[in-house]
Amino acid sequence: MAEDNSKRTDVNELGEFGLIDHLTESVRIHHDNTIKGIGDDAAVLDNGADYRLISTDCLVEGIHFDLAYTPLKHLGYKAIAVNLSDIYAMNGFPEQVTVSIAISNRFSVEALEELYKGIRTACNNYKVDLIGGDTTSSPRGLFISVTAIGRVDKDKITYRSTAKKGDLLCVSGNLGAAYLGLQILEREKQIFQSIKGGLQPDLEDQQYLISRQLKPEARFDMIELFHKAELVPTAMIDISDGLASEIFHLCKQSNVGVILEESGVPIHPDAEKKSIDFGIDPITSALSGGEDYELLFTIDVKDIDKVKYLPDIYIAGEIVPKEDGIKLHTKGGNIHDIKAQGWVHF
Amino acid sequence: MAEDNSKRTDVNELGEFGLIDHLTESVRIHHDNTIKGIGDDAAVLDNGADYRLISTDCLVEGIHFDLAYTPLKHLGYKAIAVNLSDIYAMNGFPEQVTVSIAISNRFSVEALEELYKGIRTACNNYKVDLIGGDTTSSPRGLFISVTAIGRVDKDKITYRSTAKKGDLLCVSGNLGAAYLGLQILEREKQIFQSIKGGLQPDLEDQQYLISRQLKPEARFDMIELFHKAELVPTAMIDISDGLASEIFHLCKQSNVGVILEESGVPIHPDAEKKSIDFGIDPITSALSGGEDYELLFTIDVKDIDKVKYLPDIYIAGEIVPKEDGIKLHTKGGNIHDIKAQGWVHF
Repeated sequence: MAEDNSKRTDVNELGEFGLIDHLTESVRIHHDNTIKGIGDDAAVLDNGADYRLISTDCLVEGIHFDLAYTPLKHLGYKAIAVNLSDIYAMNGFPEQVTVSIAISNRFSVEALEELYKGIRTACNNYKVDLIGGDTTSSPRGLFISVTAIGRVDKDKITYRSTAKKGDLLCVSGNLGAAYLGLQILEREKQIFQSIKGGLQPDLEDQQYLISRQLKPEARFDMIELFHKAELVPTAMIDISDGLASEIFHLCKQSNVGVILEESGVPIHPDAEKKSIDFGIDPITSALSGGEDYELLFTIDVKDIDKVKYLPDIYIAGEIVPKEDGIKLHTKGGNIHDIKAQGWVHF
Repeated sequence: MAEDNSKRTDVNELGEFGLIDHLTESVRIHHDNTIKGIGDDAAVLDNGADYRLISTDCLVEGIHFDLAYTPLKHLGYKAIAVNLSDIYAMNGFPEQVTVSIAISNRFSVEALEELYKGIRTACNNYKVDLIGGDTTSSPRGLFISVTAIGRVDKDKITYRSTAKKGDLLCVSGNLGAAYLGLQILEREKQIFQSIKGGLQPDLEDQQYLISRQLKPEARFDMIELFHKAELVPTAMIDISDGLASEIFHLCKQSNVGVILEESGVPIHPDAEKKSIDFGIDPITSALSGGEDYELLFTIDVKDIDKVKYLPDIYIAGEIVPKEDGIKLHTKGGNIHDIKAQGWVHF
């Protein structure tokens, strides 16, 4: 086995994004219709009249989900929604998905039916066609890999790398709720396991936070709004690994800095309250939590009137020259450096 | 967990293909450009001037490969080659791939570099662009999911479902060698494990069979030959799960039967000899082995002259009406029913 080689570098030393960069840096491109390969939410292929978008992601049991509190139907729905989010983040619309599943024999046909019910529900809600379905066995655990295929007009495509000084930084929806939902579920699991026989936890008043974790929606409505308002963001990325991590990707690839206004970061009242209960500053939940699947985007200042009247969009900062760094302007009036502590899976 | 439901049907009762059919039978199609979804080697999307082909597959440690005897570089190469084979089987050419990998922390960066060396070598040999590279962690084991994207002219696309009575059944290359290579590797692994400290096995004279298992090639050369000869097969499928299993897919979807000539099935001399050593009739290795990644296709009789002079193509039978069944005509002159005992992973 190659692992017996003398040099052994742990993958944690590079982190997920460093690792991908390292492994794919010498990739050669052979086809003119490959417009954009690795490095954005989705790859971009020239389709003649428009662009085809391709995005792939996988969900692994024990890393991305815990079946102790994740219903299989919700998991199927989420596997599709989070992949579609990458297509929306290019300002496009998904049209097809393929799903590869590896399962151990502890899963029954009925369990798989539940998973596929969620997959089909998501496909119908988002109007995408399930066009490929590889299902194989795994010695242990459940793996789900989804590839989403979408389409975008050539004059509407929005990359991560095209934000420019003076642009306004915007966020859709609200942030941190999915992370707090996960903390609640993890805590309840521990309580449940420590009481043999088990009390059923009362999670009624936590419904919003838990649903943000278990059944996230991708923001197709935002992309529809943009198209109706004839707004093309100057740059966009979806918020899957926490606001801080996505800000770093966007700034690094656009070669700019940012001033983020704490007062402009949208946080749901339930998330604010629960974050304080857990002893976490709410802005930290928004910056370092994950799985919000909201959109982070920048607009040219001249488009501010187009955004002002759109629902559920928040102006949260301004793009500045790279030399000015990546900073948070707190409600208290202080300026801090933002750290890229995204959701690290390694 | 949904697995606690009262009814529990084991996935083995349905088998891989029955399971996929069952789970995807009520899938709805929303987009006109989805020409063909689940049910062939690749999905087909209308691209305007031509068709885009999409195929997805996954390889799971402990099911599809054993790292005790599979070098990671070969594994990376194979993961790409076997997916491209599905695009060639539609008579098209692959142009892009995405690769999702889930790995446990027992893999070092150096081990991943080996895997990616194989992936890049395959991409360069087959001239495909690596456009997406999700890499995440897994609690145990290595999981590789590849999606291949290709293209085919609308008048050249070849489905599984369009073979017709009187067509000739053809096979490229030779069959059974990869299966026998696997048997050799499995046997050597057992011998190695039983002798502590271990003798290095002498596999010199088994090189051909082992290389067919560890480093299979997809038959892009066949598709180039077809295009040069202006030959469009009437139906085609790649041979990944054994000749018998693929014959069943092709006949079921084309609603036809077949008479397979044992004397027409190409088997390499090394495979013939080794099969006999193992006490297996060589035709059984060809019918029930797997991972040959050769092409099984049918041609109209009027095209026989186009095929006759092409290298490495063998006429192995004839398509008959469905009522006549799926039969093998042995060298001894007997007629047997062929059983669909493909490579069952469950």
